[in-house]
Amino acid sequence: MSFDQKEMFGLLYKLARMSQADTRIEHDEMGAIRVPLDRMYGPQTMRSVMNFPIGGVEERMPRPIIVALGIIKKAAAQTNRQSGLEPLICDAILKASDDVISGKLYDENHFPLVIWQAGSGTSTNMNVNEVISNRAIEIMGGQVGSKEPVDAVGHVDMSQSCCDNFSSAINIAVVMQLNEKLFPSIKALIEVLDNKEQEFKHIIKIARTHLMDAEPMTLGHVFGGYKQMMINNSTRLESCMQRLHEISLNSEGCACKSCSANFGAGCISGIAELTGLSFVSAPNMFEAVSARDSLVELHGELNSIVVSLMKIVNDVRLMASGPRCGFGELVLPEDAPGSSLMPDNVSTRQCEVLTMICAQVMGNQVAVSIGSSNGHFELNAFMPLIASNVLRSIGLLSDGLSGFTNSCLKGIRANEENIMKTLNQSLVMAVPLQPYVGHDKAVEIANLAYANGTTVKWEAYKKGLSNADLEKWLHVDKLLSFSYQ
Amino acid sequence: MSFDQKEMFGLLYKLARMSQADTRIEHDEMGAIRVPLDRMYGPQTMRSVMNFPIGGVEERMPRPIIVALGIIKKAAAQTNRQSGLEPLICDAILKASDDVISGKLYDENHFPLVIWQAGSGTSTNMNVNEVISNRAIEIMGGQVGSKEPVDAVGHVDMSQSCCDNFSSAINIAVVMQLNEKLFPSIKALIEVLDNKEQEFKHIIKIARTHLMDAEPMTLGHVFGGYKQMMINNSTRLESCMQRLHEISLNSEGCACKSCSANFGAGCISGIAELTGLSFVSAPNMFEAVSARDSLVELHGELNSIVVSLMKIVNDVRLMASGPRCGFGELVLPEDAPGSSLMPDNVSTRQCEVLTMICAQVMGNQVAVSIGSSNGHFELNAFMPLIASNVLRSIGLLSDGLSGFTNSCLKGIRANEENIMKTLNQSLVMAVPLQPYVGHDKAVEIANLAYANGTTVKWEAYKKGLSNADLEKWLHVDKLLSFSYQ
Amino acid sequence: MSFDQKEMFGLLYKLARMSQADTRIEHDEMGAIRVPLDRMYGPQTMRSVMNFPIGGVEERMPRPIIVALGIIKKAAAQTNRQSGLEPLICDAILKASDDVISGKLYDENHFPLVIWQAGSGTSTNMNVNEVISNRAIEIMGGQVGSKEPVDAVGHVDMSQSCCDNFSSAINIAVVMQLNEKLFPSIKALIEVLDNKEQEFKHIIKIARTHLMDAEPMTLGHVFGGYKQMMINNSTRLESCMQRLHEISLNSEGCACKSCSANFGAGCISGIAELTGLSFVSAPNMFEAVSARDSLVELHGELNSIVVSLMKIVNDVRLMASGPRCGFGELVLPEDAPGSSLMPDNVSTRQCEVLTMICAQVMGNQVAVSIGSSNGHFELNAFMPLIASNVLRSIGLLSDGLSGFTNSCLKGIRANEENIMKTLNQSLVMAVPLQPYVGHDKAVEIANLAYANGTTVKWEAYKKGLSNADLEKWLHVDKLLSFSYQ
Amino acid sequence: MSFDQKEMFGLLYKLARMSQADTRIEHDEMGAIRVPLDRMYGPQTMRSVMNFPIGGVEERMPRPIIVALGIIKKAAAQTNRQSGLEPLICDAILKASDDVISGKLYDENHFPLVIWQAGSGTSTNMNVNEVISNRAIEIMGGQVGSKEPVDAVGHVDMSQSCCDNFSSAINIAVVMQLNEKLFPSIKALIEVLDNKEQEFKHIIKIARTHLMDAEPMTLGHVFGGYKQMMINNSTRLESCMQRLHEISLNSEGCACKSCSANFGAGCISGIAELTGLSFVSAPNMFEAVSARDSLVELHGELNSIVVSLMKIVNDVRLMASGPRCGFGELVLPEDAPGSSLMPDNVSTRQCEVLTMICAQVMGNQVAVSIGSSNGHFELNAFMPLIASNVLRSIGLLSDGLSGFTNSCLKGIRANEENIMKTLNQSLVMAVPLQPYVGHDKAVEIANLAYANGTTVKWEAYKKGLSNADLEKWLHVDKLLSFSYQ
Repeated sequence: MSFDQKEMFGLLYKLARMSQADTRIEHDEMGAIRVPLDRMYGPQTMRSVMNFPIGGVEERMPRPIIVALGIIKKAAAQTNRQSGLEPLICDAILKASDDVISGKLYDENHFPLVIWQAGSGTSTNMNVNEVISNRAIEIMGGQVGSKEPVDAVGHVDMSQSCCDNFSSAINIAVVMQLNEKLFPSIKALIEVLDNKEQEFKHIIKIARTHLMDAEPMTLGHVFGGYKQMMINNSTRLESCMQRLHEISLNSEGCACKSCSANFGAGCISGIAELTGLSFVSAPNMFEAVSARDSLVELHGELNSIVVSLMKIVNDVRLMASGPRCGFGELVLPEDAPGSSLMPDNVSTRQCEVLTMICAQVMGNQVAVSIGSSNGHFELNAFMPLIASNVLRSIGLLSDGLSGFTNSCLKGIRANEENIMKTLNQSLVMAVPLQPYVGHDKAVEIANLAYANGTTVKWEAYKKGLSNADLEKWLHVDKLLSFSYQ
Repeated sequence: MSFDQKEMFGLLYKLARMSQADTRIEHDEMGAIRVPLDRMYGPQTMRSVMNFPIGGVEERMPRPIIVALGIIKKAAAQTNRQSGLEPLICDAILKASDDVISGKLYDENHFPLVIWQAGSGTSTNMNVNEVISNRAIEIMGGQVGSKEPVDAVGHVDMSQSCCDNFSSAINIAVVMQLNEKLFPSIKALIEVLDNKEQEFKHIIKIARTHLMDAEPMTLGHVFGGYKQMMINNSTRLESCMQRLHEISLNSEGCACKSCSANFGAGCISGIAELTGLSFVSAPNMFEAVSARDSLVELHGELNSIVVSLMKIVNDVRLMASGPRCGFGELVLPEDAPGSSLMPDNVSTRQCEVLTMICAQVMGNQVAVSIGSSNGHFELNAFMPLIASNVLRSIGLLSDGLSGFTNSCLKGIRANEENIMKTLNQSLVMAVPLQPYVGHDKAVEIANLAYANGTTVKWEAYKKGLSNADLEKWLHVDKLLSFSYQ
Repeated sequence: MSFDQKEMFGLLYKLARMSQADTRIEHDEMGAIRVPLDRMYGPQTMRSVMNFPIGGVEERMPRPIIVALGIIKKAAAQTNRQSGLEPLICDAILKASDDVISGKLYDENHFPLVIWQAGSGTSTNMNVNEVISNRAIEIMGGQVGSKEPVDAVGHVDMSQSCCDNFSSAINIAVVMQLNEKLFPSIKALIEVLDNKEQEFKHIIKIARTHLMDAEPMTLGHVFGGYKQMMINNSTRLESCMQRLHEISLNSEGCACKSCSANFGAGCISGIAELTGLSFVSAPNMFEAVSARDSLVELHGELNSIVVSLMKIVNDVRLMASGPRCGFGELVLPEDAPGSSLMPDNVSTRQCEVLTMICAQVMGNQVAVSIGSSNGHFELNAFMPLIASNVLRSIGLLSDGLSGFTNSCLKGIRANEENIMKTLNQSLVMAVPLQPYVGHDKAVEIANLAYANGTTVKWEAYKKGLSNADLEKWLHVDKLLSFSYQ
Repeated sequence: MSFDQKEMFGLLYKLARMSQADTRIEHDEMGAIRVPLDRMYGPQTMRSVMNFPIGGVEERMPRPIIVALGIIKKAAAQTNRQSGLEPLICDAILKASDDVISGKLYDENHFPLVIWQAGSGTSTNMNVNEVISNRAIEIMGGQVGSKEPVDAVGHVDMSQSCCDNFSSAINIAVVMQLNEKLFPSIKALIEVLDNKEQEFKHIIKIARTHLMDAEPMTLGHVFGGYKQMMINNSTRLESCMQRLHEISLNSEGCACKSCSANFGAGCISGIAELTGLSFVSAPNMFEAVSARDSLVELHGELNSIVVSLMKIVNDVRLMASGPRCGFGELVLPEDAPGSSLMPDNVSTRQCEVLTMICAQVMGNQVAVSIGSSNGHFELNAFMPLIASNVLRSIGLLSDGLSGFTNSCLKGIRANEENIMKTLNQSLVMAVPLQPYVGHDKAVEIANLAYANGTTVKWEAYKKGLSNADLEKWLHVDKLLSFSYQ
């Protein structure tokens, strides 16, 4: 029997009524409780599943948090070996932790808890303890659920506190996701924008200010501006990385009392080694758990990024609007020949998806800020909220960016014919006449063209300028010399 | 072989490389594509799965949307029967729709698409078409994937447009969720608050303004105030229901051209009948798809509700702070004897969960508002974003409220001894002395008590008032006569 | 000497060093303090000016709040006359209150306090007491600052509490501003949208979904949709008015103890009479001061309105983009002949102003929500923040709407020539060919036109259709019969 | 006659009807217009005043923007001198600019325009041109309004474009305000927090997690944590300064065509010299005007800061709640002896003011983000909105911080007696018993104390432990050795 579907769709509370055949009985301080036979978690996870049936699988504690807790547990066991953790048990915990770190045990549904739990992530920390202890028991040939020879609290959670663990796991998860997902997707975007800047640098087009026709510029300028925006965003994101690497273990209000004095430092350096990332002890252990400001700061940078992207993507889809009744300057890649006639082929959808993600991240910014601002006294009790929003923003943004870059931006072409036609019809064509006919006459010609619905060239011709002169003077290449080079 | 896990954790794109044994080959305008054998969806769903690998199962299009689309498809088939839809095919579609409406096909993973798709929900509408057509084929004894005798577009989507369908499905889903989940959970909360108002109406306590000791009031007054807040919230929510019942089918920019003139009206009345809810045609068909203001309005009411709840829950947990070093006026229910010593037993967690949900809803408000404000021209292309946030807010709020009401609020007790002790120590005890000693002297006594760290009674006694008088004058019952009755 | 400038630009603290000639000395419980001779306020206002030099005149407590407090003071004096307030003093207070209600005393700079004061508005209530008492003294021939024969606390504030007063003043101010400013400006907008719907109902244009060319519709449909949006918004706004009329006087935590039992009810009915508005006693006096949910609800409706307006104005300015290189379907009114060539003439600016205001209101929504959610215990201490944001949103929105309606929307013309040209170039022209050549051939023609950069008509002609038939079949009037009527 | 009041309170439109005696007639391209005789601005400012009567003086373009434009005008004139600007005129412009830079002309009401104008700040740029030209005319002995010998456009605005000017002025204003106001106020706060950390380092108190009694810590730890939060905030703020120093002049879509090639670079280095700040040319001139991301980033940091402050101030006022019926661990400074009995003395108000400001800044964050995300094409047309929100956030935060630091935080005292009493009553006193009686017995004693409403000491004594041992073991100094050092 599979519990997948039930776990997924809010039927979690039914688990309590499971038949004997599918379950084992476990005990904790609250008494006996049935746990599904094929699950590695134990009684405390089970109670939390039943007490907090909020949403379903879509509200689950994010995978990167579980992975990060696996890393902490591994580093803790290594550190505890020197404080008396029995080597055989230690080895089994290390191996079991690896199955958490690889994501294997998460994918096999041993971490059913949702985000909505104690604000300190107590239950998820215990979920990890229970799964690792049971997996370690299994590795050592024992019976899952027997607590022998590995104990969830005594061995796996040794020297730790749940608040420290969860608080640190958030930072570890976030830094890893930034490195693995967001930075690479921004980098790829910048590269494509750079290519487009080069590809389009010869195409002269009209600029628009206040949504009105303005000066000529090149299409390369447009994409060069976007590139600079994303380079700045990348720099911004870098600027808050250091503070995210500061974590705190064994150091605050609910800290473990029995651990050796240097557990925290040892464990943190273990984490740094396991991840290859420069995690260090936070300069102040009270700040580290009572405030989650670095995550607010990070999300502020994510907010800056999506503000940029909302502008870029809206510009792109406006320039691609049409094919006949819009700006029509860009052509988005087509799914199949002729599909650009369809209003929502894949490249259009990528734009819509990315702007929807931008709106979501802008909303998450508020949730994170409110959560962090409500951290009463020595512990911020909105940590799961903060973690889930930051990780969701990073994940969605990374995925949305990759899709947009690869399935839309890369294949964008300029509709050069339309760009040129539009430019020639524009009244800005009166500008290059100025050196020859003077400012006032150039304005008069532009006004005539506007009033008569004609081109500048035509009105100039009617004013007696020769066709040959006009061909020479009004060549679009001339236009740029009046503005950007 | 099961695809569950792959679908769940972002490995969707691997599906394209599935071995022949597990898949069938289907064709659409883009060519051939492999679809998992045990899935009811078809080529267009499959392409969308591969094109938009954003997040995993946690980002899936919410179940209530799929259910609502099932309802639309059923009502559409009933309507189309009169416009020539072959009765046998119609019957099969009706039955297949029932399997969507019951949630069965969603729970069996036939709806893998994520929120992040075309802003008009095109892919999800097609997913529903494909699943219903294949299920209808199965019912009729045909071969899944054969398009015979039931065609996804020709039969299931007959007379419809994706934008209309998706737009209407959102409202249907939202109204149903409000009725099934949020209204009942608010009603239950109000009842418990009413009980607490009665239960605590005799307990005199200190009021606090600016977080400072103020006048006496009863604990019943406190909960009566909360009750009124939630009654108002319920009325608020009612006030926007009518506009949510207005939907539009077959009426806007991308509308189907071949349908009979009265398909829309017929289908909407079918939906009203199927749901037992008073859905009607929107007064203006352009407004209905280009703007999603009613959802913004609704989310504004949800925002009002969580603003109330944030205040209520924070008050409750502050009054329950302690057990020894806080306000200590309330005792939250315990998981087990003595567990109230533990900082995060279940009732404390329910408070934390609900305030985290409040913060999330306040963030969602911004996402919904930005999405709806960006609806360019004849179609709002942020519909999946808006839908998912509104439905998530409703779902989380309903679940969080139920947990708080049942596992925390219901069992709250007053710590009467502490409330009385605190009140007696307060300087407000000087107030009932006023009629006997005058205002100035009463203030002097209060100031002395403050300066000396003593009680008002003691300082009054030292000023020469008799113990007997003081016992009589300072009885707490006297206090209320000076303020609230 | 004038204090205007100093008061305005953050130099308030210098007032304490004013020379003797310009000031009078007043006394309160804290001791002596200098007050500017030509100001009606007294020592407590002066202290608040010096203690909270935050921002300058731009942060001043909004005028409507002062006016509303004037109304409360007048109604209170009328009520207190029956409880022993000396008739001559009462009459003077009534007259002085009228000078507050008319705005005269505000405009003469007697209310210098900023928003940023005690969360209960204590200082502003006292500012009003001091100004009215001094003005009443003046009316009675006494010496300003002498407290004789009218006392700020004993007479003007008689039977009242600052929290009640301020809390109620907010609702009174808000309801009055809604009635005087926002409802009329929405009504005017709806009327102009209705006119435009009629004016443009014969103009067939292309619709756009996903920013891509879609079906034909009329320009009247577009403005009809906007009209419906604003009608809905007006209904929304109405739906929360009743709760805003519920106020509470003399009823909560810091309530006055010495007043007669029915002061509150009497005063509220006096307010209703003075304003001609149906203010009533709040059903629960604790809710009324500890929560400000009705204002959150109202701001949620304001948020809905600006979400609509952001969409409408963006659509309008996109349709007016050009004149040559944009959508070019609308022409905004010009300041002077030829000024539509200028990127930012007045009508363009009205669009920009209104969208900026929309963004501001969407931000204010968050500030109001956070403020209201933080109302600890028996008094919400974010009232000035909430009040100032709600009133600013109402004021900006009303003014911005009026400007947009009168200086932009009213004068908008359709560029019929361009709309027709665009439509003829569109590929949607293949649709009316369908009944004559079949669906497949129509699609083929559209694809050819797209590929060749030609019109549908031209490709159809090349396919052998006669010019005469094409003229008949492709007449734009035919287009609408395929979609909206 | 004075125009102050009219300009201030929304009566601006009445200016058009001013009597001849008070006005002069000026002309521009739109025709003749009356301008107040005693005002330095000219026809274009006057038209903008009349076209945009939105709000009143409280909506005025912020003073720092005007000052920054004065700086730009001065640097531009210096640069233009080398390009042919007549030296006498140049000198007059320099002097006139100084009167703008000093704020003198702003304070004298020559800059009446509100924020709500063209999104590029065109009108305010012209307002500055007009005022400087008229002031320069006055300096040179000419007649104000005569345009002789100094022309607003030809001389003062020479080589410039309004978008560049306004865009750069925002950054200049923002950087100056950060340096002059926010950084110093944060520094002062950190110093006082450092003092408090030292002052309170010997005071052992109870920590609180989940609002429940937790481990002992020192009051110094608490303030040390706050100090670290603010140090981090300061570092955050520094991290975005470089990007704010990047400005762009003469470089974008609406750029002046007639200027010499190196005007921009020359002018920027002039600005750097005048301000003593390291302003440089933006690396990409398109990014600089079409996106305002650096301001979004900055506001994200401001948001982080207020999130910290909301937590700190709420903690402080909760710890100061009482005096008898709250946490009662801190005593806020009193206005006068005994005033701490008053619920809202100045120090309480400072807390309320600062938290209200925090909520406002969190709202402004959303307004800024929405504004910046809507920057279509080559010009962001939400610049005045963005500028006003960023500057308001900086100003309010600086002022609110200074008030809180000086009038509240500095004078905070610990209520040592109450802290000690509370700690002794806490059940955490069972912890130091563990080494002597074992873990289980210690828990039993704690549970008994909880159940019986007694102290740990008393229950331990009843269990047979000697008073002498208990005195020794339960000394509070022992407590810390179990946790933080």
